[in-house]
Amino acid sequence: MEKKEVEEQEQEQVVNPWQVSAKDGGKIDYDKLIDQFGCQRLDQPLIDRVHRLTSRPPHVFLRRGVFFAHRDFNEILDAYERGDKFYLYTGRGPSSESLHLGHLIPFMFTKYLQDAFKVPLVIQLTDDEKCMWKNLSVEESQRLARENAKDIIACGFDVSRTFIFCDFDYVGGAFYKNMVKVAKCVTYNKAVGIFGFTGEDHIGKISFPPVQAVPSFPSSFPHLFSGKDSLRCLIPCAIDQDPYFRMTRDVAPRLGYNKPALIESSFFPALQGETGKMSASDPNSAIYVTDSAKDIKNKINRYAFSGGQDSIEKHRQYGANLEVDIPIKYLGFFLEDDAELEHIRNEYGAGRMLTGEVKQRLIRVLSELVERHRTARAAVTDEMVDAFMAVRPLPNMFN
Amino acid sequence: MEKKEVEEQEQEQVVNPWQVSAKDGGKIDYDKLIDQFGCQRLDQPLIDRVHRLTSRPPHVFLRRGVFFAHRDFNEILDAYERGDKFYLYTGRGPSSESLHLGHLIPFMFTKYLQDAFKVPLVIQLTDDEKCMWKNLSVEESQRLARENAKDIIACGFDVSRTFIFCDFDYVGGAFYKNMVKVAKCVTYNKAVGIFGFTGEDHIGKISFPPVQAVPSFPSSFPHLFSGKDSLRCLIPCAIDQDPYFRMTRDVAPRLGYNKPALIESSFFPALQGETGKMSASDPNSAIYVTDSAKDIKNKINRYAFSGGQDSIEKHRQYGANLEVDIPIKYLGFFLEDDAELEHIRNEYGAGRMLTGEVKQRLIRVLSELVERHRTARAAVTDEMVDAFMAVRPLPNMFN
Repeated sequence: MEKKEVEEQEQEQVVNPWQVSAKDGGKIDYDKLIDQFGCQRLDQPLIDRVHRLTSRPPHVFLRRGVFFAHRDFNEILDAYERGDKFYLYTGRGPSSESLHLGHLIPFMFTKYLQDAFKVPLVIQLTDDEKCMWKNLSVEESQRLARENAKDIIACGFDVSRTFIFCDFDYVGGAFYKNMVKVAKCVTYNKAVGIFGFTGEDHIGKISFPPVQAVPSFPSSFPHLFSGKDSLRCLIPCAIDQDPYFRMTRDVAPRLGYNKPALIESSFFPALQGETGKMSASDPNSAIYVTDSAKDIKNKINRYAFSGGQDSIEKHRQYGANLEVDIPIKYLGFFLEDDAELEHIRNEYGAGRMLTGEVKQRLIRVLSELVERHRTARAAVTDEMVDAFMAVRPLPNMFN
Repeated sequence: MEKKEVEEQEQEQVVNPWQVSAKDGGKIDYDKLIDQFGCQRLDQPLIDRVHRLTSRPPHVFLRRGVFFAHRDFNEILDAYERGDKFYLYTGRGPSSESLHLGHLIPFMFTKYLQDAFKVPLVIQLTDDEKCMWKNLSVEESQRLARENAKDIIACGFDVSRTFIFCDFDYVGGAFYKNMVKVAKCVTYNKAVGIFGFTGEDHIGKISFPPVQAVPSFPSSFPHLFSGKDSLRCLIPCAIDQDPYFRMTRDVAPRLGYNKPALIESSFFPALQGETGKMSASDPNSAIYVTDSAKDIKNKINRYAFSGGQDSIEKHRQYGANLEVDIPIKYLGFFLEDDAELEHIRNEYGAGRMLTGEVKQRLIRVLSELVERHRTARAAVTDEMVDAFMAVRPLPNMFN
């Protein structure tokens, strides 16, 4: 990307791994983002194709456009249809003790993809990145990575198909060789264009993009994919991670590697409204997986931005503005029953249902979700974490 | 270093790991370099102290000022005198198949230090660096590193005190953690000031300085120095490597580590004259350890720049200019007998000895040196390389 384009983008909206801000404090324009980034819209025929190929209903996040953009996902499906498998790669920067609902989205979706396509999965925990960006100690970053791994495992991944690794433990050998190969192909100016680095950024930040790039290449995992250099990689992630993989796709052919394919989500909105991502510095902007049922009830009732009218009379007359209503947005992510969601949207939009009633329904959905997660996470032992992180062949790769 | 200082330096002389050029194509001004870099002159009292502490004559390279500068070498000796040991760290970028005499100098000197102080030694082969700078493949860089390791081992290092490692094999674990810690402390602007990077340099180059920095810290080698975090490090190297260690010394206290000490050499001159380092692109600018006796004779007779006069008559009258005479410089590095060297300098300088006679003496000295090296290298087996490179405790660290 040329410098001029970056400047132009800054006047509009900025989306990169460290900053998500809409134009004039408004909503992210995802159509425009697709144009800016040069990715493709995930359209209905592609979703129908997933349905047909996997013989199961597409995930709610597909049906409702949470994952809305892609790069070469059609090629992954072409190959799959021919009988060629692929592998999944996703990850997380372990910067906080407990995850919020937005953090769970890529993992819930990745679990669905793993189950539907029966493919192996690598999950990268970038403890090195967070150590550098958040100025955490190495030890604290490693501790957070292991805590986060428990939340990830609680999403239900299959240990026989899943390898979870922390950079501080795993960087080296074939992985490091690929880091060097990638770094050779990216000039500082190019990195500035993609990531917006400045001269006052430390060189650790500038060194990091290859670390997130190389899990896209099977040769980075000799214990998993030895002799499978042509295996393709599909990356489910939030679209703010796209710059890493634009860079990766740019260099891949020069290294003789396949470009990774991507399937990209929009951002989960803050309770206060849809103007970007949630803020870790404000615990009342998000529902955490550690929140109690009382916390959830309180946060939604007090903070969830309502599209309802000021008075019951006006509400009955004009109905709710669903476009800005956070309870409706959240139900769109987590209420699986399409018919019920449609019913609520109709009744609420027409003013026959009140904000309080919609919030009640959301509180029940999220309390159940969080309670299920809490129970699953409590069952994750240290031995299970060790098992997912063991450097080993995966016994059940492609069946 | 501020940008202004770099510009000033560019008008004068440039010495960094990738460029050594004197002012106006003249000789490197080493006194000025000491001021520019802020290191200290290695003076006679310090050399006498080494003599006393090691109970052996200081190495020719010390006696004759080849190693002429240092940082905190006196502190290393203070500690040694109190009974505290240290470790040595040196290295090489394996960019060429065979080494020339200039390449051997730090290793010959390091072997002397190891023998004299009875201390452990780590030798880093930066195959990753050369892969990035010289655009070699990973495999070719690794092959060259192993070939170079044989030449290094042929210098006579003690396997019970020496660990040789290649970055591509060894980067990871505690070593990578230290890389991240160092990278966090160096801004891009700072790196530009130290190393002169430009925006068109690839990010691999910008990522590299921490790789060369961290062997200065004992915690990078848990299999060697576990629990010895306060062990000090002494780095023998050519002074063009000083920027790496200026950076390292700058960040060390912020990481709670000791600053490494340095003992730094001038450059071995090219056969054509003392205007910088030898050029790998011109095989006639240097004597290689693979040169035959005939090659050596031919190169010295044809190319070694002479300070003798144009005619025998003038030579008898004015004598040779020893300041520019390459045979005399080379004898200063490799003729161990102080009395004989002094005799030759006197006779040649007074015009009683001719260039041809001095060259004959040099040819004999270098032929014997190269032949000794060739014999020693031929005896280095792959098993010996494996033994030096094995990740292991050193059985004979400090006695």
